[in-house]
Amino acid sequence: MAATPSSYSITMRLHTNPDHGVVGQVATAISEQGGIVTGIDVAESSHARLVVDVTCSASDSDHAEKVVAAVDEVEGVVVHKVSDRTFLLHIGGKIEVRSKVPLRTRDDLSMAYTPGVGRVSMALAKNPDDVSRLTVKGNSVAVVTDGSAVLGLGNIGPGAALPVMEGKAALFKRFADIDAWPICLASQDTDEIVKAVEMIAPGFGGINLEDIAAPRCFEIEARLRESLDIPVFHDDQHGTAIVVLAALTNALRVVKKQMADVRVVVSGGGAAGTAIVTLLLAAGVSDVVVVDREGAICAGDESLSEAHRELAEATNPRRVTGDLHAVLQGADVFIGVSAPRILQPDWIAEMADQAVIFALANPDPEVDPGEAGKYAAVVASGRSDYPNQINNVLAFPGVFRGLLDARASEVSVDMLLRAAEALALVVKDDELNPSFIIPNVFDPDVPKSVARAISGRDTD
Amino acid sequence: MAATPSSYSITMRLHTNPDHGVVGQVATAISEQGGIVTGIDVAESSHARLVVDVTCSASDSDHAEKVVAAVDEVEGVVVHKVSDRTFLLHIGGKIEVRSKVPLRTRDDLSMAYTPGVGRVSMALAKNPDDVSRLTVKGNSVAVVTDGSAVLGLGNIGPGAALPVMEGKAALFKRFADIDAWPICLASQDTDEIVKAVEMIAPGFGGINLEDIAAPRCFEIEARLRESLDIPVFHDDQHGTAIVVLAALTNALRVVKKQMADVRVVVSGGGAAGTAIVTLLLAAGVSDVVVVDREGAICAGDESLSEAHRELAEATNPRRVTGDLHAVLQGADVFIGVSAPRILQPDWIAEMADQAVIFALANPDPEVDPGEAGKYAAVVASGRSDYPNQINNVLAFPGVFRGLLDARASEVSVDMLLRAAEALALVVKDDELNPSFIIPNVFDPDVPKSVARAISGRDTD
Repeated sequence: MAATPSSYSITMRLHTNPDHGVVGQVATAISEQGGIVTGIDVAESSHARLVVDVTCSASDSDHAEKVVAAVDEVEGVVVHKVSDRTFLLHIGGKIEVRSKVPLRTRDDLSMAYTPGVGRVSMALAKNPDDVSRLTVKGNSVAVVTDGSAVLGLGNIGPGAALPVMEGKAALFKRFADIDAWPICLASQDTDEIVKAVEMIAPGFGGINLEDIAAPRCFEIEARLRESLDIPVFHDDQHGTAIVVLAALTNALRVVKKQMADVRVVVSGGGAAGTAIVTLLLAAGVSDVVVVDREGAICAGDESLSEAHRELAEATNPRRVTGDLHAVLQGADVFIGVSAPRILQPDWIAEMADQAVIFALANPDPEVDPGEAGKYAAVVASGRSDYPNQINNVLAFPGVFRGLLDARASEVSVDMLLRAAEALALVVKDDELNPSFIIPNVFDPDVPKSVARAISGRDTD
Repeated sequence: MAATPSSYSITMRLHTNPDHGVVGQVATAISEQGGIVTGIDVAESSHARLVVDVTCSASDSDHAEKVVAAVDEVEGVVVHKVSDRTFLLHIGGKIEVRSKVPLRTRDDLSMAYTPGVGRVSMALAKNPDDVSRLTVKGNSVAVVTDGSAVLGLGNIGPGAALPVMEGKAALFKRFADIDAWPICLASQDTDEIVKAVEMIAPGFGGINLEDIAAPRCFEIEARLRESLDIPVFHDDQHGTAIVVLAALTNALRVVKKQMADVRVVVSGGGAAGTAIVTLLLAAGVSDVVVVDREGAICAGDESLSEAHRELAEATNPRRVTGDLHAVLQGADVFIGVSAPRILQPDWIAEMADQAVIFALANPDPEVDPGEAGKYAAVVASGRSDYPNQINNVLAFPGVFRGLLDARASEVSVDMLLRAAEALALVVKDDELNPSFIIPNVFDPDVPKSVARAISGRDTD
């Protein structure tokens, strides 16, 4: 019973008898239940009792309850309180605003605020092009959501989406020194969302759309790209597409196949699937079949939605029909951005030799990566507890760093292709293997390389 | 020739002959021109030459040019480059976003972002009341402007207003540990502004409206207060009113007059003037006359705008008419939030004994504070280079700290009165004198006292 992912981590405050040997018994009880002890701190030690904080990982809340129950049964131990570390981390929020300038004296105030700031504002009124240089606009991104398609959680609304947007803002800073602020919108109406983003745009250097449901997200992005003079990027679409193309580029290096020759099946015709298909086609893949709940999407099917009709026109050149199992016959690559456990591991045996499987549904993939590995040459997923994690953090920080550095006014398909290529090339030839097709998110070359590819200029 | 305010500060890079004595000659040349040397750094010293950075304050750009010219004329000195320190300070913006949580390991990422954050979002979807506690919403304020009435600069638009809003955000952090973000809106239409603020409200714990022109600002504030469940506060109105009432409270302590007995003349019927009048009336002042460009505002005048008609109904009980000079006869208090140099110093002699003058037009007051001091018992202004600076920084950080601490959903007149009283009381009886009616902005008791008055609870 493996305790992953570790995001489910609890701290138990224990009251025990004063015998320090009890700590070992507690640790044993936890590991017997499959929990992983990550920290033990004695908070108080007297002749009467010990107070001990024990932190451990569990796979989910049921598992955590079992671990707590096992600890509670250890002779002489009372579980006084259980804290969920992830919730503790979120108290008060995860991001803050800081002043970059000193504000210690009246002199400081008179430069950063009135009256000094008035001269800067007057200069900007005369030369609006300087706004990006003399304000935070040049380094800031709005992380905009309507809360309609948050992670795998669905339509949970703008308030409940805020922790995700804050996390994204924190990652923007961590990986690309970008000042991003979450904007959670009170409406899920396309016109209202477009208008709201247009209204707030003057203060930002870029717009990162996030977790907005398809097909609404397509129109919102298209209209904002048309109306705004700053770049607009829907990360769920294009961030995912960049990382998938980079991973596929390297997977094909491993299995020695060419982009133009492979047959690709994409499961899921939503925001991510559509963007992945578009980028794969631009990268030279010619045979892509998109499968949704109804089966393969095929041109000429009058029952398709408008978005899917466009997708059908651009894909499925052999006009195949049928369900996922049928369509997978002989395919080289499966890319899933759809739903948990829809791919039977043994179906992979019916694909072409040296099959590549990207099972990206979160948090539960289309197929268990371990099971898929028995049949496929290369397996990637969204999971951090398996090799080859496809994670948008590999793309969006560098993408926006590059856009801001270049003072870009838009995002082109060519930029996305260059970013994917740069990301793939971070994995050196001598590092490349079936378990390492995509770089580590903490590799500092990742955001730098992506930014350079987007902006066309050197950074640091 | 006094060199104030010091927000006009330049750094000259000088190339000189290698004689260090030249530095003294440069300092002399600067002070002869009325500049104030605030720093001298030798950047490079060789047998051939010195490179010296000299920083000094000047009163304005013409003055700075004269100072530079005088330095350039010193024998053996060449002014290589002149930098404006205020502009240097603004490069790249004045605020940044920081992560409050560690992001060093995969474990960190899995708690702050996916998959861990998903559990927090699900919890918030179930219990929306927890959003403030588990996200930045509980500590964040949107500083919203349309750029239509920025400082004394007028309608310069949202981009040029951004340095002011950033400065405000920096002050929010400095004085009240609040995470404020500037929102500069692309429209000056009342309906569009109201809608945009409603749209972004889910992510913020409060709305600080800023530098929005009257009378539009009144309707915007009123409608947002009606529709939103978070407090809405137009600082140009209510922040100013709080500080003015606090200063007047203490000024009347100095001249030993009662709020209920004094005759007050307010010059300016815009956003600030209207809010000041409203708060003075709530504080017990019974005789207020508002004067604008056309003279005293008086009930029954059919030519008044709707906003001024309401003002007229509530004020001017003696139905006085005439211009500022006429209305000032016998008045105890003048409060100017209008235009530069509209009050002749000797008119003050025609006011009641022990007159109180608040000349708050920025950056140039209604009357020179030094000249006013020859006739008045107490003089205050917006200037940092005279005693008794009326500065909104004394109010808004503490006000929002109190609102956020109390999870308040609205701002009441009673809160504003309590805040003004608390601010006045920060000046102790033994400190109070005609040159010290309002506390120093850096006094840590200021935001604490104001916050406590607003929230009704102790902080720290």
